[in-house]
Amino acid sequence: SGRSTSPTLYGNRGMSLEEDLQESNQYYLIQNIAVVHKKPTPIQIVDVHYPKRSAAVIKEAYFKQASTTDFNGVYKGRYIDFEAKETKNKTSFPLQNFHAHQIQHMQYVVKQNGICFVILMFSSLNEIYLLPAEKLFYFWERKESGQRKSITKTEVEENGYLIPIGYQPRIDYIKVINEFF
Amino acid sequence: SGRSTSPTLYGNRGMSLEEDLQESNQYYLIQNIAVVHKKPTPIQIVDVHYPKRSAAVIKEAYFKQASTTDFNGVYKGRYIDFEAKETKNKTSFPLQNFHAHQIQHMQYVVKQNGICFVILMFSSLNEIYLLPAEKLFYFWERKESGQRKSITKTEVEENGYLIPIGYQPRIDYIKVINEFF
Ligand SMILES: [Mg+2]
Ligand SMILES: [Mg+2]
Repeated sequence: SGRSTSPTLYGNRGMSLEEDLQESNQYYLIQNIAVVHKKPTPIQIVDVHYPKRSAAVIKEAYFKQASTTDFNGVYKGRYIDFEAKETKNKTSFPLQNFHAHQIQHMQYVVKQNGICFVILMFSSLNEIYLLPAEKLFYFWERKESGQRKSITKTEVEENGYLIPIGYQPRIDYIKVINEFF
Repeated sequence: SGRSTSPTLYGNRGMSLEEDLQESNQYYLIQNIAVVHKKPTPIQIVDVHYPKRSAAVIKEAYFKQASTTDFNGVYKGRYIDFEAKETKNKTSFPLQNFHAHQIQHMQYVVKQNGICFVILMFSSLNEIYLLPAEKLFYFWERKESGQRKSITKTEVEENGYLIPIGYQPRIDYIKVINEFF
């Protein structure tokens, strides 16, 4: 993540949402706009070998479910925390993409007055929205109460903010934070 | 980390600095005082097997050096970021415990107005200090310029804050932040 990416990549192929966000974060970092990093994937390590004269090798490990969101950092002294998800659907965003403990974590962050949100990408539409955590909680509760398991596209438009997609940064979510938080 | 720890543990054995901090963070979380987590250890995954009907198994992976600090989170809306280290020395704290890219990360955080510091434990003395990042930078630069490779105990005392050690939370670093930041 410390390496700069060649500009030609963008013209030639679609990068993943996560790569685009990491590139955006790298831009924010270098420009002294914000310091945001993706957390490492949590791993349960079971067996490690320590060969002589070379690096330790993990021989058995498993992916653990993350207990928090993927991204966090600082913008003008304020704490920022978010999760990013994408869907190929065009008319709604499925809520099963989120886990109960991620929602719980976001509730803790909001109580502590952090800036907390989700980035929702409709990849078939090439549209990316920032939805504040408080709005997500409403739709999550609706699902938990047995009602619809997704957020309609219209609801995302009405409760979220369209994030400008550009060249540098690729996904300018700080611009939205700056305007609306 | 989501599980509560038995209180009897503390009377019976010394926990590690990291465990003590995780316990303190869990206390802050439950009491709605702050939301701070340790980041997962970064791992470079080389080979993963996907057995039928069971979880993916990582068969070859390596430890990567962390490019940021270990702990971050939010306190009253403010971003908190720190690294924790211990030494058995009684008269000085060795600076080789820190890596150049961690210092670089802390410099970015300070520029972005985050609350940034290190927690330094003198384990033989049972004393734990909070040293603000700006002070650490001074001693780091001194080392980089070819002078002493450690911070003397007296310098830690004069530039840092003694953190109260107690029962719950075990290491009350938020109390220091609340008073001095
Ligand atoms: Mg995720
Ligand atoms: Mg560390």
